[in-house]
Amino acid sequence: MNEFSIIDKYFSWNTDSSIKVGVGDDSAVIEIESGYQIVTSVDTLIEGVHFSADTCAADIAYKSLAVNLSDLAAMGALPRYFTLALSMPQINESWLHEFSISLKSLALDYHINLVGGDTTKGPLSVTINVTGLIENGKAMLRSSANAGDSVFVSNTIGDAAYAWKQIKSNKACGIGALNRLNRPEPRVHLGRNLVGIASSCIDISDGLEQDLSHILHSSNVGAIIDIDCLPLSVEVRDYVQMTGDWCVALAGGDDYELCFSVGKGQKKKLNELQKGLGIKLTEVGIITPKKGLVVSGFSTKCKSYKHF
Amino acid sequence: MNEFSIIDKYFSWNTDSSIKVGVGDDSAVIEIESGYQIVTSVDTLIEGVHFSADTCAADIAYKSLAVNLSDLAAMGALPRYFTLALSMPQINESWLHEFSISLKSLALDYHINLVGGDTTKGPLSVTINVTGLIENGKAMLRSSANAGDSVFVSNTIGDAAYAWKQIKSNKACGIGALNRLNRPEPRVHLGRNLVGIASSCIDISDGLEQDLSHILHSSNVGAIIDIDCLPLSVEVRDYVQMTGDWCVALAGGDDYELCFSVGKGQKKKLNELQKGLGIKLTEVGIITPKKGLVVSGFSTKCKSYKHF
Repeated sequence: MNEFSIIDKYFSWNTDSSIKVGVGDDSAVIEIESGYQIVTSVDTLIEGVHFSADTCAADIAYKSLAVNLSDLAAMGALPRYFTLALSMPQINESWLHEFSISLKSLALDYHINLVGGDTTKGPLSVTINVTGLIENGKAMLRSSANAGDSVFVSNTIGDAAYAWKQIKSNKACGIGALNRLNRPEPRVHLGRNLVGIASSCIDISDGLEQDLSHILHSSNVGAIIDIDCLPLSVEVRDYVQMTGDWCVALAGGDDYELCFSVGKGQKKKLNELQKGLGIKLTEVGIITPKKGLVVSGFSTKCKSYKHF
Repeated sequence: MNEFSIIDKYFSWNTDSSIKVGVGDDSAVIEIESGYQIVTSVDTLIEGVHFSADTCAADIAYKSLAVNLSDLAAMGALPRYFTLALSMPQINESWLHEFSISLKSLALDYHINLVGGDTTKGPLSVTINVTGLIENGKAMLRSSANAGDSVFVSNTIGDAAYAWKQIKSNKACGIGALNRLNRPEPRVHLGRNLVGIASSCIDISDGLEQDLSHILHSSNVGAIIDIDCLPLSVEVRDYVQMTGDWCVALAGGDDYELCFSVGKGQKKKLNELQKGLGIKLTEVGIITPKKGLVVSGFSTKCKSYKHF
């Protein structure tokens, strides 16, 4: 089995008529409706760095695409197409089968098509470049939070970091937390619906402290968040109350929830949105003119995720 | 130095006002003029597979972008923007400096901007996803060669494979051949100019036999090429005459010249183009209704490049 038959067998599907040429030529050709801008992002997952050697192919595929969809969600973009660069030590057909089924399943859920790729022999690593569309000028940026805006977080945070800690120390953790680590739900629908409501937005990949700080830095403002307001699952709340380890919620990455700021005038709309989408949106603090991030009720310095 | 300061220091430049948000948000935002389709492609270069451990950072950066630009060239597309996923074992500032200078220099030559990336700790590997534009419906595909069309090749072929063979056996090779291996010139201008003239096009990355066969397979046709017509540099011609090793030209990859088919009615235009661009375009054979590739004057079976 060579590169071309791998592509034919596992990575050729197309459900979108705007993709004029998909996998199988030198490049893909895609039609873009007028009135939209392109939104694009790339993320790599490497064995031994982002996932352990015993992670199943389906989880690797899911997470590789999900973390990229999450970047589109943070901009409010509509997913459209992606490319896949897959490096693997050898061809393992059952692994490829499992990987491609999982990838395709998530892709179909979010109406995004694979348009091109490169498979190479090398250490196991998955790079996905995802592209979406946003109505002209409507992308939610990190740079437009205003003093006085409220800071919100979707769903609960800390679950993925908690699950990771438990696994690392050979302790039990519920399937709920484990799923948050291995199968994070990209907040694409929420992101789309926040366009025009949120003044700034980011996805929490490296931990709330670090990611909110990116918004503060880009927007030239500060924030106060209240430790008691952080939305925690029952399992994480129990763990934190027992250990005092608030850092799983403050600095634990990999949750891929959205953190966003909302002006006073938009809060009513946000409330309606919360009901409509059935997702918890929790106010955790406020944007301040004074720079820096203050965590009220907690003075420990958490260790943030570092890429190197 | 963390991921964010690497990006700020080495990978933040933008010379294109259509890039509304570049490096530094969750995703980039790019404006596309109406009347164009998106053309996109991805390629990975891995240490130990595509380049040796002693390849300098500048050559790695150059080639990583050049091979991607070559895929755009083969479609006739105008380069627009790219993302970079860079995995490296540790942060080496002088390596990064050299890498980024070389990348930027080639990018500026082809008016293409870096809009996003991901840097991760891992084995040295570079994945670039390049995006360009093509006038609606004008992309040169592999699937539209017609029986009776002539097959052309740009410049000379076999140089990169020859250089690689010489290096591998510790023999001398001229700087010309070495440059073809390490610094292949992406045929972007030629590709743009072939739009409306060529009936099909591909870039020669895996060797003429294999790449032309992709055109034949996609177009449901065959071809006869004449071994004596293959355009060879003086150095490669001397080597082939001495060794009889025509396979460097037939199956040697990494030249990134264009192979394309041209109908009878377009040959005059092609001739003018050749003069205008100052690049040699050589007729090497003809497309036939009978499937399969026949190499007239040579019966040896060459070993094609295999990705696995």
